[in-house]
Amino acid sequence: MKNYLITIEYDGTAYHGWQRQKNDATVQAEIERALAVMTRETIVVNGSGRTDAGVHALAQTANFKSGAGLSPQAFRMGLNSLLNGDIVIRDCRTVADAFHARYDARGKVYRYRIWNDSLPTAIERRYVWHIRSELDFYAMQKAAALTIGEHDFRAFEGAGSPRSTTVRRVTRAELARDLSGNIRFTIEADGFLRYMVRNIVGTLVDVGRSRMRPEDFKTVLESRDRAQAGATAPPQGLYLVKVVY
Amino acid sequence: MKNYLITIEYDGTAYHGWQRQKNDATVQAEIERALAVMTRETIVVNGSGRTDAGVHALAQTANFKSGAGLSPQAFRMGLNSLLNGDIVIRDCRTVADAFHARYDARGKVYRYRIWNDSLPTAIERRYVWHIRSELDFYAMQKAAALTIGEHDFRAFEGAGSPRSTTVRRVTRAELARDLSGNIRFTIEADGFLRYMVRNIVGTLVDVGRSRMRPEDFKTVLESRDRAQAGATAPPQGLYLVKVVY
Repeated sequence: MKNYLITIEYDGTAYHGWQRQKNDATVQAEIERALAVMTRETIVVNGSGRTDAGVHALAQTANFKSGAGLSPQAFRMGLNSLLNGDIVIRDCRTVADAFHARYDARGKVYRYRIWNDSLPTAIERRYVWHIRSELDFYAMQKAAALTIGEHDFRAFEGAGSPRSTTVRRVTRAELARDLSGNIRFTIEADGFLRYMVRNIVGTLVDVGRSRMRPEDFKTVLESRDRAQAGATAPPQGLYLVKVVY
Repeated sequence: MKNYLITIEYDGTAYHGWQRQKNDATVQAEIERALAVMTRETIVVNGSGRTDAGVHALAQTANFKSGAGLSPQAFRMGLNSLLNGDIVIRDCRTVADAFHARYDARGKVYRYRIWNDSLPTAIERRYVWHIRSELDFYAMQKAAALTIGEHDFRAFEGAGSPRSTTVRRVTRAELARDLSGNIRFTIEADGFLRYMVRNIVGTLVDVGRSRMRPEDFKTVLESRDRAQAGATAPPQGLYLVKVVY
């Protein structure tokens, strides 16, 4: 048995997230099905973590074990020929037997895209959150910077996720914008709670809309109370950008 | 009756092009249907020209006449609320009675996007032509420059389009690329023949693949013979960027 690490780009629009489910199409299930066709083995693919329904990935990672003796290149090419165009295996390599995509991950980078314009976008509509009213970018930047460091992020956690602690260390939280009204929020941490990025973004947008001051964002964070934070931003603006090992 | 000029962005993926057809969904038909709902008039929308099935537009233009007395803003907002998210009215204004979106157009700008990478893209797959083998960018640039000026473009014309002449004046033909393997071809002319941009791009890619030298591109252009040119590039990489008045 060899242990393989794959890097996967996907358009989450058509999928109920990463994790295998009974009745719905998921990215994990599609890859496992393609692996079964290639190897005639029943292979479990261990993702670095879940992504929710509709969320995209530029570089999700996962590992799996196979005794079929195929080269990493053969897996990459074979999987890409069997998968739909909305899932692409960008890399495949062998790793040490003990390597596990989730347990060995030291951190992750997520990005969230906001389309801040009085008009929606036709061509980018599956990949952004459209917000009509002009956002106060600098207030949002101030608030975003408050996430940096080690904090208890319980105020930004969605219900129903198993975890031993709600403390996470954020090492990067950047907001950038371009001339056409695109706002990009990039956040890196040693781990993320369920819905954490989308709840942070929803609350940052409340700041951008002047419903909340940047100082209030700090109060929300320290409250450890989900009811204090903003609404969950929609999934289609979110991308898993990188898993750090 | 007032005459209105609209600017339209659309994702062409789901449409059989701009032009109204008997059985297939088209952008023109969707807009005319929405106008009928708003005004209870039967309105014909005159586009600046056709775009083919699967081709996108950042700023197609069209004019129509209505006696409903609605303001341009009311048309813009009403249409956007009635249309699918893949068609967006970006602007609406009143124009002189005699104005016609097609006959008054002095030129157009098209863009074509190539994704030149050994791996396909999941997220951009509807908006680029994926070419695996590394293209010779400088050779393509040389060839592209040969389109500038007034030429008979019959070698790059698709069959079945009504036109009085195949001579067109190209005023801009630029190739640019970025670090991630994106190649963008931007071309401006006083008018375009059917499939002209896609046939030029297909031939430029033959140059990029070293199947043809840049000098051969000139021979093809001067031959006025469609059989000499390359294959028609697929529609999903093409965008109508601007109509010049």
